[in-house]
Amino acid sequence: MRIPGRKQMLFSLLVSLAFCGQALAFPVPDTVSEAIKPVIAAPPLPLWQKHPASMEEWKAMVENFEKTVSASVPAFLQKMGVECEPSVMAGVPVFTLTPPSVAKGDEDKVLLYFHGGGYVLNGGLSGVREAVFMAKESGYRIVCVDYRMAPFHPYPAAIDDAIAVYGELLKTYRPGAIGVFGTSTGGGMTLILPLRARKDGLPLPGALGAGTPWSDLDKIGDSYFTNAGTDNVLTSYEGLLQDAVRAYAGGHDLKDPMLSPVYGDLSGFPPTILTSGTRDLFLSNTVRVHTKLRQAGVEADLIVLEGLSHAQYYFVEDAPETRFHFAELSKFFHRHLH
Amino acid sequence: MRIPGRKQMLFSLLVSLAFCGQALAFPVPDTVSEAIKPVIAAPPLPLWQKHPASMEEWKAMVENFEKTVSASVPAFLQKMGVECEPSVMAGVPVFTLTPPSVAKGDEDKVLLYFHGGGYVLNGGLSGVREAVFMAKESGYRIVCVDYRMAPFHPYPAAIDDAIAVYGELLKTYRPGAIGVFGTSTGGGMTLILPLRARKDGLPLPGALGAGTPWSDLDKIGDSYFTNAGTDNVLTSYEGLLQDAVRAYAGGHDLKDPMLSPVYGDLSGFPPTILTSGTRDLFLSNTVRVHTKLRQAGVEADLIVLEGLSHAQYYFVEDAPETRFHFAELSKFFHRHLH
Repeated sequence: MRIPGRKQMLFSLLVSLAFCGQALAFPVPDTVSEAIKPVIAAPPLPLWQKHPASMEEWKAMVENFEKTVSASVPAFLQKMGVECEPSVMAGVPVFTLTPPSVAKGDEDKVLLYFHGGGYVLNGGLSGVREAVFMAKESGYRIVCVDYRMAPFHPYPAAIDDAIAVYGELLKTYRPGAIGVFGTSTGGGMTLILPLRARKDGLPLPGALGAGTPWSDLDKIGDSYFTNAGTDNVLTSYEGLLQDAVRAYAGGHDLKDPMLSPVYGDLSGFPPTILTSGTRDLFLSNTVRVHTKLRQAGVEADLIVLEGLSHAQYYFVEDAPETRFHFAELSKFFHRHLH
Repeated sequence: MRIPGRKQMLFSLLVSLAFCGQALAFPVPDTVSEAIKPVIAAPPLPLWQKHPASMEEWKAMVENFEKTVSASVPAFLQKMGVECEPSVMAGVPVFTLTPPSVAKGDEDKVLLYFHGGGYVLNGGLSGVREAVFMAKESGYRIVCVDYRMAPFHPYPAAIDDAIAVYGELLKTYRPGAIGVFGTSTGGGMTLILPLRARKDGLPLPGALGAGTPWSDLDKIGDSYFTNAGTDNVLTSYEGLLQDAVRAYAGGHDLKDPMLSPVYGDLSGFPPTILTSGTRDLFLSNTVRVHTKLRQAGVEADLIVLEGLSHAQYYFVEDAPETRFHFAELSKFFHRHLH
C-alpha cells in the first residue's frame, strides 16, 4: 500500500472542493476540436440547477428561457437556409422544416422530431434548433412536435401528442418512410413512440435516432452517479431533472415503459442509432438501451463522443463533433428509410 | 446559487477520502447482473498499482502472476471443452485453440489473438483465457500469439512477433478469412496489425475485434482523467501502466501509430467492433478509434457495457455481460469473415 503523494492529496482536495460546488474540475481534453472546447470548459449550466417552487415560478422560468432561445431561431433558420412553417396536426401544434433542397427520391420520406428539455422546457420555436441542423444535413422534411408539457400538462399529455402527430403522418407516409429522432427527453420519446404505437395497433416507423435518451426517469443507471459533477450540462439528477420528474410523472410508476422506455419490450424495434458522450450523465441511459436492443436482435448503432457532456453535440454550430453527429444520423436514416 | 446540503458535503468528503486511497467509491449499480456485481464492488486490483524498481523485480512480479493464472487454465480449458496445442510459428511460440466443434464452413477460417497485459504481462498459458471463451462461443480455431514482452524485449519485439505469425497464417488462409482480436494491449495490437501489414505490403485481415484497445500509450484522452479512480482494474495511468509504457516504448515517440494506433491512417480498415465499459479508464481510447474509423468510412460497431471497468467483460465466467460480449464478437466475425 502506497502512502498517497502530495500531488494526489492536492488533487483529492480539489475534487472535494469542486464537488461542493457541484462540479468536478477535469482538464479540457486535447482530443476534442478547438471549436467545442469552450462548452467543455464552461461551468455547469445554471438552468439545470433551478428549483421552481410554485406554478408561477415554473411559468416564469420556462417563458424566460424560451423567449431567449426562440429569439435566436429566425436568424439560425435563415443562415441554414431552412424554412419553418407552423401549423396544427391532429390538434397538436407542429413546425414543419423544409431543407434548402429535398433530395430526389426523398420527397416521400419524412422525419418526426421531439425536442428535449425534461418534459418541461423548449416549447414553441425554442424547440426546433436541433432539427434545423438535421434538415440541412439530411435533406429530409422534418415535422417538429410542439407537445404539451409539465407541470401544466403532466404525463401522458406529451406522449399523447406525439402519437397523435405520428398517426396523422401515417395517413400520408408509409411507416417505413418515417424516421423518428430527438435528444434527451426527445430521445426518450423516440423510444416510447414505437411502444405506444404497438399498444395502439399502429405500424412502427422505419428507423430511430435516440440521442442520449432519457430512458430511465428514476435515478437508476451507473452514470447518474459516476458522471455526476463531470457532466457540465445536467450536472446531477438532483437538479431541475428531479423536479421535472415529479412535475411530469406525478405519482406514476417510473418503471412504466411509457415513462422509462428502457423497461419496454424492445424486440421488433426498427434499426436505431444512439449517441452519447464520455462525460454524459445519460451515458448509462444510452448504453442500457443499446445493449437491450442488440440482445433483442435489433440493429442498433452506438456512438460515444469524446469529452462531451449531455447533448453537447448540437451546442456548437461549426464544431466537427456537431457535423460528425448529424452526418452519422443522416447516413443512418438514408440507409434505413425506404 | 444553493449552499451545498449536508448530504452533498458528506458525499464530497467521502469522494475526497476515497480518492486518497486511489479509488472513488460509487455504489454498485442495480443495472448489472448479480454475477458481475462482485467484480464491480471489488477494491482496485493491487497488480496494476505495482512499481517494479529493477529487472529482478519485474521478473519476479511477472513470473509470480503468470504462474498463478496459468495454473487455472487447464481446468478452464477442460470445462469449456477447448483443446490447447502449443507450437511455434515463424519462430514465435503460439497456442492453437480448437473449439469443441468447428462449425461446418468455418474450417477455412481462423482467428488470430493477442492477449492484454500492458506489453509486460500474460505470457505463456496465462494469456489464453479470453481466447478460450471466444473459441467456445464462435466455433473458430484460434491462434494465440505468445509474443515477446518488455522490459526484457521492448518495442518493436511484440509487434514483430505479431506480424510474423500473421504472415505465416497468410500462407494457409485467405486474408478475408482471418479475424484478429484482443483486449487492452491486445486490442491495441489488433489495430496496429493492419497498419504494420500495409507497411510490409501484406493484405489486410477480414475483420477486427478491438476490446477496450490501448490506442494511445500517452496519457491523452478524456477518460484517463474522468475515470481515474472510478475504474477498479487499472485505477489510473500512474500505476503499472505508466511503468509499462516506459519499459516497452523506451524513448520512442508515443505518437507513432506502431505504438498508439489512434494516430494511424485507419482508412481502408476491415470492419471493426470495439467494446468498452462506462467506468473504463480506456473508454476514450475506445471511442476515439471508433469515431476515427467511422470518419474514415469504415464499418465500425461500438458496445459500451453498463457499469464495467477495464476488460471486466471476460472476468466472470457465467455473467450475462460476458456471454453478451462474446456473442456479439462472434456474430461480428461470422458476418464479416468469408
